[in-house]
Amino acid sequence: MAAPLRIGMVGLGTVGTGVARILLEHAQRTADRAGRRIELVRVAVRNVAKARAEITKAIEITTDPMKVATATDVDVVVELIGGLNPAREIVTAALESGKDVVTANKALLCNYGDDLFALARRKERSISFEAAVAGGVPIIAAIGQAMTGNQITSLAAIVNGTSNFILTRMFHENSSYEDAVKEAQRLGYAEADPSMDVKGTDAAQKLGLLTQLAFGRRVLPEQFPVQGIDELSLMDLKFADELGYAIKLLATAKLVGGHLELHTQPTLIRHSRPLAQVNGPYNMIELTGDAVGKAWFSAMGAGQMATASAVVADLVDVAVGRARINFERLHLWAEQETFPLQRIEKIQRRYYMRFLVEDRPHVIADIADILGRNGISLSSVIQKEANEPEEANVPTTPVVPLVFMTHMTTEGAVRAARTELDKLSAVRMPWLCLPVSG
Amino acid sequence: MAAPLRIGMVGLGTVGTGVARILLEHAQRTADRAGRRIELVRVAVRNVAKARAEITKAIEITTDPMKVATATDVDVVVELIGGLNPAREIVTAALESGKDVVTANKALLCNYGDDLFALARRKERSISFEAAVAGGVPIIAAIGQAMTGNQITSLAAIVNGTSNFILTRMFHENSSYEDAVKEAQRLGYAEADPSMDVKGTDAAQKLGLLTQLAFGRRVLPEQFPVQGIDELSLMDLKFADELGYAIKLLATAKLVGGHLELHTQPTLIRHSRPLAQVNGPYNMIELTGDAVGKAWFSAMGAGQMATASAVVADLVDVAVGRARINFERLHLWAEQETFPLQRIEKIQRRYYMRFLVEDRPHVIADIADILGRNGISLSSVIQKEANEPEEANVPTTPVVPLVFMTHMTTEGAVRAARTELDKLSAVRMPWLCLPVSG
Repeated sequence: MAAPLRIGMVGLGTVGTGVARILLEHAQRTADRAGRRIELVRVAVRNVAKARAEITKAIEITTDPMKVATATDVDVVVELIGGLNPAREIVTAALESGKDVVTANKALLCNYGDDLFALARRKERSISFEAAVAGGVPIIAAIGQAMTGNQITSLAAIVNGTSNFILTRMFHENSSYEDAVKEAQRLGYAEADPSMDVKGTDAAQKLGLLTQLAFGRRVLPEQFPVQGIDELSLMDLKFADELGYAIKLLATAKLVGGHLELHTQPTLIRHSRPLAQVNGPYNMIELTGDAVGKAWFSAMGAGQMATASAVVADLVDVAVGRARINFERLHLWAEQETFPLQRIEKIQRRYYMRFLVEDRPHVIADIADILGRNGISLSSVIQKEANEPEEANVPTTPVVPLVFMTHMTTEGAVRAARTELDKLSAVRMPWLCLPVSG
Repeated sequence: MAAPLRIGMVGLGTVGTGVARILLEHAQRTADRAGRRIELVRVAVRNVAKARAEITKAIEITTDPMKVATATDVDVVVELIGGLNPAREIVTAALESGKDVVTANKALLCNYGDDLFALARRKERSISFEAAVAGGVPIIAAIGQAMTGNQITSLAAIVNGTSNFILTRMFHENSSYEDAVKEAQRLGYAEADPSMDVKGTDAAQKLGLLTQLAFGRRVLPEQFPVQGIDELSLMDLKFADELGYAIKLLATAKLVGGHLELHTQPTLIRHSRPLAQVNGPYNMIELTGDAVGKAWFSAMGAGQMATASAVVADLVDVAVGRARINFERLHLWAEQETFPLQRIEKIQRRYYMRFLVEDRPHVIADIADILGRNGISLSSVIQKEANEPEEANVPTTPVVPLVFMTHMTTEGAVRAARTELDKLSAVRMPWLCLPVSG
């Protein structure tokens, strides 16, 4: 058997502990698969005493991550501290000193992928990051290896488990958005400040990575529509259901007439589509290839052992030599010819528009008139009767929801209409506009 | 760029033509991904004139497959003729003359995997076969690479697209089994003789391959229960639906108390599970790993371009050097310690039992008595009223369906009960017994 692969791990949080568990508890199994032992030899942590409780005494523990990054007895550095700094310095030092790198740090790649990948190429080392997108779903391998006979023509992904958990909870428990967020926090699915997840930022960053992989194009979140689930109410999930759809935070990239169209938004998806049926903290990526047609990949998007599973798969890839090959063939953050980006205004979709309006004459007509003048035609309208005020002599105007489904139109038309709609005094602000997936 | 990888293809049927199309029409794209050109240089076919219409003149066409298998200007032989002979001789000759092999031939691997893999190891060549199981679903890569951090604990798979199409058609079109088979044949989803598909043989062979990959154990279809969809009636799909289940031809391998339990049978699956929602000619494999939890992989299970996509992915793997690594790490058809097989009698499940019985006193009691004496307890019973005979004075006894759902019991108990039940004069033969997935 070949020499052991020696691992230096930086960070022993939730995922790090999971990786250590697999490597320590299943050393023989892992060695059988890798053709050599994969040995955890050094770990950098903030609190040595706490780490001692988790892992065996044979492992050198330090509080200085640079010691692990530059250690001469380490072949691969596993970076699991997250965040930009010092993760960037650690990974840079590891590559500089000739080590391969495995990371689950999406933000690091989004911000410093350029430099880090160039450095790895120069040093003829690899960076593996299966755990950085969609946790237990092997989507980096699927795009980079299984789909090589295809041009991927579209990618539609549920990649934020927190948002998916919240939406599932709201719908199935008749829960408000606020209560569902609290439940997600209680269960550890959401951070104390959930804004990265619920505002769509996390999903948009993942879409950026997937778009590079699938279409060879670098994009920044400001180049495409990004919308979070924090604008939704339970009634939207119920209206969508009534119309035959689920609402999911969907990250989409697709080729339309040779242009690449991107968006990360809560999206209405027909009940019959597999994406509509993904519940709780699960992720799913639907790929369409010009040869294979549609393919679906689904698993837990986060969580200790699902993410650790992806990290260990990367380590086995390093051990057997696949990681170096995969990295070399990926062309990430490298110059390449690719597809022009669709201008946001030209993106074509159907839309769900939900207003809260004062229940008085001519409101529907006013809204429909604005939509019509902007070239937006309607496929259906839902208006429910207002509840009668309990005391008929109270002179408040009741507020009622009003839902329009449009035919195919452009984002430009919707934005033009929005400017006018925002001025209608009978419409409560903000009103909600979501795309419908084709 | 490295030297081109030169391909010799044997067979230019549906899939072969698809592979040729990708290689010829997307040569530059494929070269970008593989880091070298992948050139189709030789093709063996039965009918040269017909092949000429499909592919460019630059390619050497022969009717002698051995010429392709042994050609000195070929690096990889792609075997796409199917069947056992001469596929076996062709693959053997290709390996003997130092070529890597890519094949979509499941039957060949099931029957001669032993010899062929040993030969490939001796010659330090690879055999790749992503296209042999589940067409466009990259399940070989998923098990062999993405799941290396896990012990797979269960695998449940819809891998026969023909059966799945027929069951979907029956249910959604209220069609008889016979009519659905005819429709599948008309659309090219079923062979003129569909028995390999509808009797479960094809799915059982695929389960054998997947079991080797996931559990390292060689099994033969006679070592586990194999049952086809040809025993089902539309009423069974309707009864199952009423009870909250879909019926799918499910190939299952799982660890139960350290034993490996296998079966390939039409199985009741709860509506809420992703497997229950796979319709038409699609395949899905649900894997459970001890780290990742559940993961799902789905795509078209057959068809020209989905299968060709898998073949081309294998060719790119050969071109970049992954195929040799993957093959070496797979340990297929090699000696290894693994799990003992569960004895068929000890397999524990719930069951769906549907009888057609003469509507006369004491029939339910007789059946329930036999089940009870064999230790099988019931969780629910459906009996619908018989239609009144049109002429009341005709002395025929009407036949009515009678459905039992059991609690957990053993296959042994069910088989013992079956012997007694078969003797009941009021029960029409054959009656149907299907497992319920846990």
